[in-house]
Amino acid sequence: MRNTYLFLIAFLATAPVWGQPPAGSRPASNIPGAEYPRVHDDLRVTFQLRAPDARKVQVRLGQTYDMMRSEDGTWSVTTPPLVPGFHYYQLIVDGVSMNDPGSHAFYGTSKDASGIEVPEKGVDYYSYKDVPHGEVRIRPYLSKITGQWRRCFVYTPPDYDSNAKTRYPVLYLQHGSGEDETGWTFQGRANIILDNLIAAKKAVPMIIVMDNGYASRPGAAAPDTVVAGRGASGGASAFEDVIVKDLIPLIDSTYRTIADREHRAMAGLSMGGNQTCQVTMRNLDKFAYIGAFSGTMNGLNISPLDPATAFNGLFQDGAALNKKIRLFWIGMGTSEPNPFPGAIGAFRAMLDKAGVRYVYFESPGTAHEWLTWRRDLNDFAPRLFR
Amino acid sequence: MRNTYLFLIAFLATAPVWGQPPAGSRPASNIPGAEYPRVHDDLRVTFQLRAPDARKVQVRLGQTYDMMRSEDGTWSVTTPPLVPGFHYYQLIVDGVSMNDPGSHAFYGTSKDASGIEVPEKGVDYYSYKDVPHGEVRIRPYLSKITGQWRRCFVYTPPDYDSNAKTRYPVLYLQHGSGEDETGWTFQGRANIILDNLIAAKKAVPMIIVMDNGYASRPGAAAPDTVVAGRGASGGASAFEDVIVKDLIPLIDSTYRTIADREHRAMAGLSMGGNQTCQVTMRNLDKFAYIGAFSGTMNGLNISPLDPATAFNGLFQDGAALNKKIRLFWIGMGTSEPNPFPGAIGAFRAMLDKAGVRYVYFESPGTAHEWLTWRRDLNDFAPRLFR
Repeated sequence: MRNTYLFLIAFLATAPVWGQPPAGSRPASNIPGAEYPRVHDDLRVTFQLRAPDARKVQVRLGQTYDMMRSEDGTWSVTTPPLVPGFHYYQLIVDGVSMNDPGSHAFYGTSKDASGIEVPEKGVDYYSYKDVPHGEVRIRPYLSKITGQWRRCFVYTPPDYDSNAKTRYPVLYLQHGSGEDETGWTFQGRANIILDNLIAAKKAVPMIIVMDNGYASRPGAAAPDTVVAGRGASGGASAFEDVIVKDLIPLIDSTYRTIADREHRAMAGLSMGGNQTCQVTMRNLDKFAYIGAFSGTMNGLNISPLDPATAFNGLFQDGAALNKKIRLFWIGMGTSEPNPFPGAIGAFRAMLDKAGVRYVYFESPGTAHEWLTWRRDLNDFAPRLFR
Repeated sequence: MRNTYLFLIAFLATAPVWGQPPAGSRPASNIPGAEYPRVHDDLRVTFQLRAPDARKVQVRLGQTYDMMRSEDGTWSVTTPPLVPGFHYYQLIVDGVSMNDPGSHAFYGTSKDASGIEVPEKGVDYYSYKDVPHGEVRIRPYLSKITGQWRRCFVYTPPDYDSNAKTRYPVLYLQHGSGEDETGWTFQGRANIILDNLIAAKKAVPMIIVMDNGYASRPGAAAPDTVVAGRGASGGASAFEDVIVKDLIPLIDSTYRTIADREHRAMAGLSMGGNQTCQVTMRNLDKFAYIGAFSGTMNGLNISPLDPATAFNGLFQDGAALNKKIRLFWIGMGTSEPNPFPGAIGAFRAMLDKAGVRYVYFESPGTAHEWLTWRRDLNDFAPRLFR
């Protein structure tokens, strides 16, 4: 009954036998040995699944594509050219959404979902290169706030272990809705991006702490995550307390950090951008650098914001904020869907009205997706701790 | 098309709405918020999937269980009590094997497969406890042997960073067939087991290196992994060279190791046990401790072995081996299926005949599965480097 070995044999015996793969294409970032999905030279992608008894098989990657059945029960479809970068996707078999056995799963969309990497020609800032590499360290901790075991991923730069006296600044870097502490490493490749930036002397060596954006106080019915649209007036969320009371003390006592606001940054994507604004603006004694990637303090709310009243007036004194905040960085993809352009636009208009300085970055041709956020990090990280 | 946010909305809108969960049961080690699968007090497990348009839905967890359809299109089944520990499993929808959206996926059975943790009453050696914790570090490296980027997971013990002068012995620890470098952390919980052993002073602090057991030389058609049944006469496999020529130099130059054979062990499970025997016995100048978990040098071969001739005579001189090998440890679950009892039995008979000393450990009631190997590690690690 619990026989992994026989299970494996059974799996192999029923594994799909694919036909001859199309020329000018190669396996994507797949499970070892899997021939599909395949990316073509022109970035079309062919998906394939063996499902002789299914009546309908589709691929959902943003839009939904019907797959065609061949006589032997193998279904396949080739999409139009896809935008480069990382995309979540699902196969749909007789109405049931499932992972593609040919692809690795990544925690996103509130489950372990299939992901595909579409190559970006001439771009290598998020690819492994023969440069010194840092580490991503999986660190468990018992949260005083939630009463539960949590886990953070901690990037330490290439020279961390050999420069035993050097202390480093810290970037707290948060994922988006339905993702977790693994996202910035496995989907975002934050460690590879930083290795390359540091090797090119474009960014200063830093520690990056990637935690889980969901947190609940004991007995709470649902996670308390500083979600979209929540103001700053409601007291600290469980997540804010995890960052401020659990994580910063843990990181500063465990790693060789420079433990002051001038050497502490926070950034996040989507929900994580919202959380970043909330946590940093309520704790400017602890953070001097702020990065909001495709998500700002107003969440999904596109209504105009008056700095005199919005967020309890946190933004009303632009001159004072400009003295305190070393960098306020906002980024967005040019193909982001509603409500992101409107919401981020409303937040920027408020900052403009208040005279708060910020850097605004646009990722050309990308939507609410990981390539936007890789580009964000690649632009944001070099500006930190200068 | 590549709109993660809308994709998420679409996912949430179609997410299953489960009925009232059965009393005396709780969610297993699931995706946050998922109510199923649920484990009952008596270790029965209820699986559930919403699939209104499917004609047949099953769960395969060793054996295959048919799920029953309710009127609203939700399918469910409750298994008999399961053996505690970690089990891979799959749902089968109209003949297609798929992951359970309610469970995390683990790389095993040559894909990212669903896994479930069935709790073991009164046992906490692989649970987080409030003791000092080490880290698991994800380290990329460019292999001279394969020409490709590889990744190893490196456990450093709790005091590694604070005892900046201390050097540590190293255990190289390998996964089984269809698994990878993540297995011993996510399925095996090797880091938690060692944290607990070290806190209880049952094991000496050590570094554990977990690499990928698959390796190919450039241009090779298939991985060259020292697979089951291969003798030691065929020269070094690509995997052996990765361990000896890539990994040991990398680890000894990157971490504070004690870089001699008396402070270097290797162990592995199933295919990894076979690899361990091959690599260590061919490199006794580099290893003094050997652990074979549910897999020995003869792989799946149950034929009697004559130490005078088997494996090019590597085992013929028991007295000489007993002087060199500080520990030869062999373990197996009492419920392992064929061919494991026969193959491991044949290997032990050969060692007996040659007079090679070894420790033999049995895990009661477990098969070829991760609970066997957690117990193995929990018995093996305390015997190292004494």
